[in-house]
Amino acid sequence: MVERATADPHVHRVRVYYEDTDHTGVVYHPNYLNYFERAREHLIGVDRLVRLLRVEGVGFVIYKVEMRCRRSAVYGDELEVHTTATRANDYQLTFHHKLYRARTRELLVDGHVLLACVDRNGDVAPLPESVLAVLEPG
Amino acid sequence: MVERATADPHVHRVRVYYEDTDHTGVVYHPNYLNYFERAREHLIGVDRLVRLLRVEGVGFVIYKVEMRCRRSAVYGDELEVHTTATRANDYQLTFHHKLYRARTRELLVDGHVLLACVDRNGDVAPLPESVLAVLEPG
Amino acid sequence: MVERATADPHVHRVRVYYEDTDHTGVVYHPNYLNYFERAREHLIGVDRLVRLLRVEGVGFVIYKVEMRCRRSAVYGDELEVHTTATRANDYQLTFHHKLYRARTRELLVDGHVLLACVDRNGDVAPLPESVLAVLEPG
Amino acid sequence: MVERATADPHVHRVRVYYEDTDHTGVVYHPNYLNYFERAREHLIGVDRLVRLLRVEGVGFVIYKVEMRCRRSAVYGDELEVHTTATRANDYQLTFHHKLYRARTRELLVDGHVLLACVDRNGDVAPLPESVLAVLEPG
Repeated sequence: MVERATADPHVHRVRVYYEDTDHTGVVYHPNYLNYFERAREHLIGVDRLVRLLRVEGVGFVIYKVEMRCRRSAVYGDELEVHTTATRANDYQLTFHHKLYRARTRELLVDGHVLLACVDRNGDVAPLPESVLAVLEPG
Repeated sequence: MVERATADPHVHRVRVYYEDTDHTGVVYHPNYLNYFERAREHLIGVDRLVRLLRVEGVGFVIYKVEMRCRRSAVYGDELEVHTTATRANDYQLTFHHKLYRARTRELLVDGHVLLACVDRNGDVAPLPESVLAVLEPG
Repeated sequence: MVERATADPHVHRVRVYYEDTDHTGVVYHPNYLNYFERAREHLIGVDRLVRLLRVEGVGFVIYKVEMRCRRSAVYGDELEVHTTATRANDYQLTFHHKLYRARTRELLVDGHVLLACVDRNGDVAPLPESVLAVLEPG
Repeated sequence: MVERATADPHVHRVRVYYEDTDHTGVVYHPNYLNYFERAREHLIGVDRLVRLLRVEGVGFVIYKVEMRCRRSAVYGDELEVHTTATRANDYQLTFHHKLYRARTRELLVDGHVLLACVDRNGDVAPLPESVLAVLEPG
């Protein structure tokens, strides 16, 4: 199977609040994964995720995370998460995230997150068509 | 009904980590409610709470929170949450929390949290005997 | 001094993400204080808060929190925080927050948060004119 | 330079609270990085980190994170973070973390976190002797 990526990255804007920072003055690093998570939810569609979970009993679990922190975000920053996705196999998706400071276009953090689709019992399940349709619109 | 309080406060120790602080250098205030929540879970017993939720379908929801912040906790602090509980009525408990810096015995934060017992449908339910037995051992 | 309130409430929209919920299926209660905090930051202006802190060394600390939880927010909810502010005295502000589910207009949580203005040493400082101008535009 | 690792892993115990979970019933994945962070702070010593930051103006920033999630932790779990460290070069350390469920000894999550030592200006700085002495006691 040929990996296919979404053509244009999905862009999700994030504001850095008090809650995101730590006493060293910058964003506490696990919060970058929160930003990535929010971006994925918007890319797939929060309403679609809710419906999948409640009606079909299908959700996603994290398998693997890689993240490289190049520069720190600070309080008050407006950030953009640019996200694309590739189908790893019939059950797994990899999301590719790049976090930029909106004003300066600096790349702050980038990463890859591998997720698997699972059913109510936690067993792997095929990626839903409705999700693939969003990620591979062509 | 006469309100009865646990005689000696339950003491739960908390360490302040990076994740608890914000860029102003002190603990981000909603995290004090986390400390109170952890203290309640230990007072009632985490295993008991798990069993109540899974077997009897009974849990607790927060109705009301009051918190007064007198001094700020900072990174590295060892804190103590001192907790007592009073039965507000057959369905509700009030927990009284005092947060101290362990080393100096300074009172940093205190508060009251009113919780109601609810069943799987979210309807109020009588306080379980097993919980009352812990809070009112006499 | 007569207390003066901002006439129309400031409205800040919040989306409920995975990170906001807990295993009981609803928003973990301290996160409501995060939503209130974000609303205050937008009301005053994040850039203004950054400038006050860096240039004038002036910030805000939480003195008192009261919160009443009437209904729970759940994953995927779009919420609105409606906020007004009253000057408690020359050094303190009280913010009044109401959290609604946007779609149904249900009131979920409301609360009051008392903040004091402090300087770099943590001593109380007069409320900055630039902040008062935002809160009392008349 | 030969990489040297701490012989026996440092063990840090973690309890899973409400705050750690999300609405799918398991620990929200960025929180595993919190557990790793706490373990590092205890391994190096929180008091030592406070002193380094305040007196010498030296701290650590995250460069790279890799994490593999094998099984999910759930509410009430008692976990153990087993940590070793290797010196990557004169400025950087890699921490190796393994997260186990204490009762069953199952490996839930493992990961590697690369940190760099920085001074007050954010420039890389040599790893402090006091930190190396802890990590390479031999």
